[in-house]
Amino acid sequence: MTTTATATKQFMSTEQLLEHWQGHRNLTRRVIEAFPEKELFEFSVGGMRPFAKLALELIGIGGPALKGIVDGTTEAYNEEAFNPKTKEEILKKWDEETGVINHYFGQISEERFQETFNLFGEYEFPVYQNILYFVDNEIHHRGQGYTYLRALGIEPPFFWERF
Amino acid sequence: MTTTATATKQFMSTEQLLEHWQGHRNLTRRVIEAFPEKELFEFSVGGMRPFAKLALELIGIGGPALKGIVDGTTEAYNEEAFNPKTKEEILKKWDEETGVINHYFGQISEERFQETFNLFGEYEFPVYQNILYFVDNEIHHRGQGYTYLRALGIEPPFFWERF
Repeated sequence: MTTTATATKQFMSTEQLLEHWQGHRNLTRRVIEAFPEKELFEFSVGGMRPFAKLALELIGIGGPALKGIVDGTTEAYNEEAFNPKTKEEILKKWDEETGVINHYFGQISEERFQETFNLFGEYEFPVYQNILYFVDNEIHHRGQGYTYLRALGIEPPFFWERF
Repeated sequence: MTTTATATKQFMSTEQLLEHWQGHRNLTRRVIEAFPEKELFEFSVGGMRPFAKLALELIGIGGPALKGIVDGTTEAYNEEAFNPKTKEEILKKWDEETGVINHYFGQISEERFQETFNLFGEYEFPVYQNILYFVDNEIHHRGQGYTYLRALGIEPPFFWERF
């Protein structure tokens, strides 16, 4: 592991990033809730994955990735580990992962965020960049989810409501 | 203006945030380019705005918002200031704004990121949260753009290609 950048002026603290991420996770939870049960698992646009699949991708990244970073393990990403059949199961797991994320995130030191790590044995970047990617990927897929909801004639939650 | 948070452990530096944001802007530029001229201005899903409109929203935020933060002005957000008729005009303005963003971002001090500011006379948040919102909003709308492209049968650029 090497330090890739010299920390100069701080943009935000680790606590602020975590609060920001969990705010986004609250919004994504609302988007999951907004889908009717059947459409959550089946509806999509342009041959893309239904929103349940996208939510499972997000569940498979956040907590497991942070655990890997903290434990220093490079086990491969595994989306198949959790295979729910209902919206309720997804939401329950989503809420469990909230605690998992808080638990592992709090164990990452300031220096560690600047060190490179081979996440899932595949994505070798500074830890802060990997974590930004988790958040960005969630916003990106949720943007797809908003489009699915609109195509279904359903009003999505307000983008700025996070808590 | 008041300081809203105590900076403790640094998550990322200001330079890292700027690089991250400009990487996203490069990707959004590629998404604009991927649309055929007509569809850029006319195509949408579920009654949402065409991608040209979303791109104009983004152009209306980044540079003008940073200028407002630096100059301390609370002029209202104005999307109508720029009304292009072609993809080329949008891309040209997009590239101009890259320099505007770099210029103003570099003038914000570490302390300032933690101060609240009434952006566009309407959004009163710490500066770092306002800036995160610009990036998030771009990723969100670009996620819609990806869905439009897929619905048009066009392969979007890779999400992870930023430079």
